[in-house]
Amino acid sequence: MSLFLKALRGEPLERFPVWLMRQAGRYMPQYRELRKRAKDFLDFCSNVELAVEVTLLPEKVLGIDALILFSDILVPLKPLGVEVKFSPFEGPLLKAPPLDEWKEFDPKGVGFVFETVRRVKRRSNLPLIGFSGAPFTLGAYILEGKTSKDFKEIRKLFYSDRKRFHLLMEKLSRMVVEYLSAQIEAGADAVQLFDSWAYVMSPEMFKEYTPHLKFIADGLKARFDVPLIYFFRGSGFLYKEAFKLPFDAFSIDWSLPIEVALKELSGRAVQGNLDPTVLYAPDEVIKNEAIKLLQKVAKDRKTLYVFNLGHGLAPDMELNKVKLLVDTVKNFSL
Amino acid sequence: MSLFLKALRGEPLERFPVWLMRQAGRYMPQYRELRKRAKDFLDFCSNVELAVEVTLLPEKVLGIDALILFSDILVPLKPLGVEVKFSPFEGPLLKAPPLDEWKEFDPKGVGFVFETVRRVKRRSNLPLIGFSGAPFTLGAYILEGKTSKDFKEIRKLFYSDRKRFHLLMEKLSRMVVEYLSAQIEAGADAVQLFDSWAYVMSPEMFKEYTPHLKFIADGLKARFDVPLIYFFRGSGFLYKEAFKLPFDAFSIDWSLPIEVALKELSGRAVQGNLDPTVLYAPDEVIKNEAIKLLQKVAKDRKTLYVFNLGHGLAPDMELNKVKLLVDTVKNFSL
Repeated sequence: MSLFLKALRGEPLERFPVWLMRQAGRYMPQYRELRKRAKDFLDFCSNVELAVEVTLLPEKVLGIDALILFSDILVPLKPLGVEVKFSPFEGPLLKAPPLDEWKEFDPKGVGFVFETVRRVKRRSNLPLIGFSGAPFTLGAYILEGKTSKDFKEIRKLFYSDRKRFHLLMEKLSRMVVEYLSAQIEAGADAVQLFDSWAYVMSPEMFKEYTPHLKFIADGLKARFDVPLIYFFRGSGFLYKEAFKLPFDAFSIDWSLPIEVALKELSGRAVQGNLDPTVLYAPDEVIKNEAIKLLQKVAKDRKTLYVFNLGHGLAPDMELNKVKLLVDTVKNFSL
Repeated sequence: MSLFLKALRGEPLERFPVWLMRQAGRYMPQYRELRKRAKDFLDFCSNVELAVEVTLLPEKVLGIDALILFSDILVPLKPLGVEVKFSPFEGPLLKAPPLDEWKEFDPKGVGFVFETVRRVKRRSNLPLIGFSGAPFTLGAYILEGKTSKDFKEIRKLFYSDRKRFHLLMEKLSRMVVEYLSAQIEAGADAVQLFDSWAYVMSPEMFKEYTPHLKFIADGLKARFDVPLIYFFRGSGFLYKEAFKLPFDAFSIDWSLPIEVALKELSGRAVQGNLDPTVLYAPDEVIKNEAIKLLQKVAKDRKTLYVFNLGHGLAPDMELNKVKLLVDTVKNFSL
């Protein structure tokens, strides 16, 4: 079994595994080369040949311990009837029909995703992580119609029409279960749910939202035995409710001290935590910060931890520094 | 003594006082009228006649219990040598000289601020709150040169040059002490420090930054007996370190449950907490959410609380709803 899956399942490790959110991204010259071959970003994600090559890049370039499907969290919204396009200047732009006119999700509408999963599995022995946006984060994008600092629209809906908020979350949760199921059936070895905008919620709002996350975890657990990872920003103030959920692992940002996460998740896996900004620092600082984090983890446990950042890699990061970070983790023996 | 100062000093109250961050702002038609008389935003802040009128508006229009000086947190940066302008499209744009070429802050460079304070005090019997940006939030703006989602530049500096980070914080902290001192001398009855971007820090970074906040609190305490309020976003995960600081009151956002704040701050004042998004909801919801919060507070204490939002009022909010909120608080008897 791979180091990554061993870590998630709590088996003994010689070292902690490492992968990085957005490990195949704009910071990588090889990615930028491949990107030129597609006309826009959605075309890039839905072109199976290109998506496979991009997914595989970090194995060769960085030597990480797990691959993650190259795609975008907005991809599965199209089969629901939501229009999505990517503007080079404004980022994602979305337009959704009224909630009662949404279509039921049909995985066939995004067959290229599962085909990408199948082909990646044939090309690499590394474990492959499938993923989906979490209902709140997807709903936040849909209602806002674009990216935002504070995603006010979904919070407005929460206060002004609680029933419709839950209906939206239900529709998205059903989609997430089907979408991730199809990825697992195609060969994904683990799946991660991205709740990148969870931090705009109050703890009370988050608590009222968690049954939808539980629905997803339960739905997948009933059918599959692959590890489920929940990534949520705002970890520092939402962790208590989040950790009650039946996920196998929690990927945390840097707002939660690692010691607290380790203590609260004894017996379950923790992923992430390093502030990605560290990657702009001199090499010595990158090494020291990574080792400091690894030492804190190793003091508590020798498994059930996967190294990652608290958020994705940014386009202006340097490949050499990212490599240095990966190597530092790989050289840290347990 | 005013209700507001009684609440901050822990004296018995018949009801909780209320004021709102950005209570004099674009959501208010009367503000928009006055705004037309100035050519740009900085001109609007530095025109004493206009700034006095704007500061006074919420007393007549909303009937709140405290006024806050109308100005901008970037105003006192100019005497340090930092260029600041406001673009109608991009918001604030800043350009700072190298750190060792900064000038020592001279309050005379922003004399209009203190003149505004003096004139407001002559025109109203309400307590007047002076304010300043906190060093981190100001530093974040200065290094970024504009507004941002995650203020990466100051976090980069923290990791790559710790000494220069502290030097920047020291320079800004000295300015803050002088700037707030001059406001108090001009007649401000309380002062609030705005750390609007504190939430981009990790708890570790925040902890290393807090001595600068302590320097400010100690510096003001040594000279004056006016209540000092510290407003910080990211309250939900930074509160433990923040509450160790010698401020008289803490203004919190909605990421920290009010029960936790009340418990951790027994004997000291709490301000704020309501998610401003509530103001987009139907009237009934606004009332209910405000009352729910007030009841939680009243269960714990009958003083040492000032009603406010967790963040400022937004330009697209409706004046009638803001009024309803203020009235709801004023009708809640203890």
